[in-house]
Amino acid sequence: MFQFRTIKKDSSSQARLGELSTWHGSIETPIFMPVGTQATVKTLTPHELEEIGAGIILANTYHLYLRPGADLVAKASGLHSFMGWERGILTDSGGFQVFSLAKLRKISDEGVEFSSHIDGSQHYFTPEKVMAIQQQLGADIAMCFDECAPYPCSYEEAEKAVQRTSLWAARCRESHQREDQALFGIVQGNVFPDLRERSARDITRLNFPGYAIGGLSVGEPKDEMYAILDLTDEHFPADKPRYLMGVGEPEDLIEGVKRGIDMFDCVLPTRLARHGTAYTHEGKITVRNAGYAQDFRPIDEECDCYVCQHFSRAYIRHLIKAEEMLAARLLSYHNVYFLIHLMKKIREAIQQDRFLSFSQQFYQHYKF
Amino acid sequence: MFQFRTIKKDSSSQARLGELSTWHGSIETPIFMPVGTQATVKTLTPHELEEIGAGIILANTYHLYLRPGADLVAKASGLHSFMGWERGILTDSGGFQVFSLAKLRKISDEGVEFSSHIDGSQHYFTPEKVMAIQQQLGADIAMCFDECAPYPCSYEEAEKAVQRTSLWAARCRESHQREDQALFGIVQGNVFPDLRERSARDITRLNFPGYAIGGLSVGEPKDEMYAILDLTDEHFPADKPRYLMGVGEPEDLIEGVKRGIDMFDCVLPTRLARHGTAYTHEGKITVRNAGYAQDFRPIDEECDCYVCQHFSRAYIRHLIKAEEMLAARLLSYHNVYFLIHLMKKIREAIQQDRFLSFSQQFYQHYKF
Repeated sequence: MFQFRTIKKDSSSQARLGELSTWHGSIETPIFMPVGTQATVKTLTPHELEEIGAGIILANTYHLYLRPGADLVAKASGLHSFMGWERGILTDSGGFQVFSLAKLRKISDEGVEFSSHIDGSQHYFTPEKVMAIQQQLGADIAMCFDECAPYPCSYEEAEKAVQRTSLWAARCRESHQREDQALFGIVQGNVFPDLRERSARDITRLNFPGYAIGGLSVGEPKDEMYAILDLTDEHFPADKPRYLMGVGEPEDLIEGVKRGIDMFDCVLPTRLARHGTAYTHEGKITVRNAGYAQDFRPIDEECDCYVCQHFSRAYIRHLIKAEEMLAARLLSYHNVYFLIHLMKKIREAIQQDRFLSFSQQFYQHYKF
Repeated sequence: MFQFRTIKKDSSSQARLGELSTWHGSIETPIFMPVGTQATVKTLTPHELEEIGAGIILANTYHLYLRPGADLVAKASGLHSFMGWERGILTDSGGFQVFSLAKLRKISDEGVEFSSHIDGSQHYFTPEKVMAIQQQLGADIAMCFDECAPYPCSYEEAEKAVQRTSLWAARCRESHQREDQALFGIVQGNVFPDLRERSARDITRLNFPGYAIGGLSVGEPKDEMYAILDLTDEHFPADKPRYLMGVGEPEDLIEGVKRGIDMFDCVLPTRLARHGTAYTHEGKITVRNAGYAQDFRPIDEECDCYVCQHFSRAYIRHLIKAEEMLAARLLSYHNVYFLIHLMKKIREAIQQDRFLSFSQQFYQHYKF
């Protein structure tokens, strides 16, 4: 069963508290989804993700199709069972990866020919093929196959991507069968407001149970991204969840929520962790820096996660310098916890109708 | 407070059930100590080690002296506090590493000049210096600085190492002051029974609270190692714990216990894990092999650890192939659990005076 309802609207912004129910539990929105590209949120166990409070995670169709293959995941009775995760999963469509990670061979209205970034092998994605793969993976939420134009790109390029994304969305809608899986539409249009509007009109006409904003946070300045997000409430029906793909930094989550976004995902918390960087309520800190060598305080003195309760910056810096895997683990745990709990505090603020003052307070401490 | 007592002797072997009490808790012996070379048992958290049932771990003096430095660990109030581990810790003396890992510059009766394997920097270890470092690290058990002869080596070489180890043990005994730390003596002698006897006589004369057998499992055939271990009961007082350093494989633990050993440590469970290999009750399996790609059974069907309860060989193989850190984590967790629980079963068998039948049963299933 898939359902979304709004519990409360903030009175001074577009922020909204909602409830998203899937076949693997109900969660309150707005929510941050940790990214488990290859059926694992890097370095963390499902048990830890539950402990952190993650209600839904993202997995990548492109990666899992290439390795270990959708057939194998289907044989394991789907992704939940394969990776031992009992809460929600969303699979992206592979659109973004095919255009950013794979070597693109040929694109037509029919589909995309590409070669694998792993071994160079040739593959062909059509909307129908991507639906078949995602139905094999068996996530709670699947995404339409879309064309993600790069930034910067010409108006014509962005327009072509919008047209193709609309065409493909209809074909995805048509070929998607699985009743225990919700299919979301994706809106493109790059940084062009009229293309965004056209794409939103095309996609919402197909009446999906949820809508995503794709093709943002791909290199454009933040004010251009926020300008597009300003159109969210105008473009999307109020009774469907809105998902901002691949975003983002703590400030982007706040700015997105402010503009009516319900769902976010981003690789940053785990990627930054692997590079020795941690979120704190005062901004990011690079724990690998020499300045932390004798700093026996926790990563974030205001954080109550397992890592901050047990380990010092000095110890974690030692682990980084000594190239110990535990460093990436501890920082990943903390960073994911930081974003999951930022969202929790955001939800509490909306519930108490003080979202704007919450965001002001956040910016008072958080330095960029 | 440091104390050791024998609870029960096996009637048909030298195996014994004991209790080792340190300033960080009491544990039953025989025991396996996971190795946390750089103040971390690779990939695992202290919380997990407690969950697995580890009562004491080993950390390496040589590594920690070089990085992050004993001064920093002392500033963090010692190793326990630095790494967030509240149970027992034993630090080795750095002897083995200086002779195996560092580039050896010069050795004399006074001490050893070596250059760091990390950055080539020059250092000098004397028995007094090693005692000072270990007292800064603050483990429950410290080890005397010893000379570990290689295998193979001449009788004369082994004899020289025995003499020096005896000389150094007396100096260690003399300079060790810390009352909340037990200092163990180390016996050398390579594979020469008369040198082992001489070394044991020299070292036990110094009346340490515990004794280690060093310089085994360094390349010699197993039967040569077992032949030396046959002398354990004869060489060591019954009322002191006996520690076989750097050993070992499951079968070595059983053969060691049979000959009266109480303590073991080995990097193998975590090292094998990083290479995609797991212990099972039927022997080791290389999970990265293609044969496990569609094997949805747990690593070991008889194991009740977190990993075996939640993940399949197929999933872990996928993680290995996809170069995901979680693979090493899950296999490390399982492998350490396997050895810790093998020791638990051994202790139960000794308690019930059925150690020999237990070991026969083990060998019936476990294939080399």
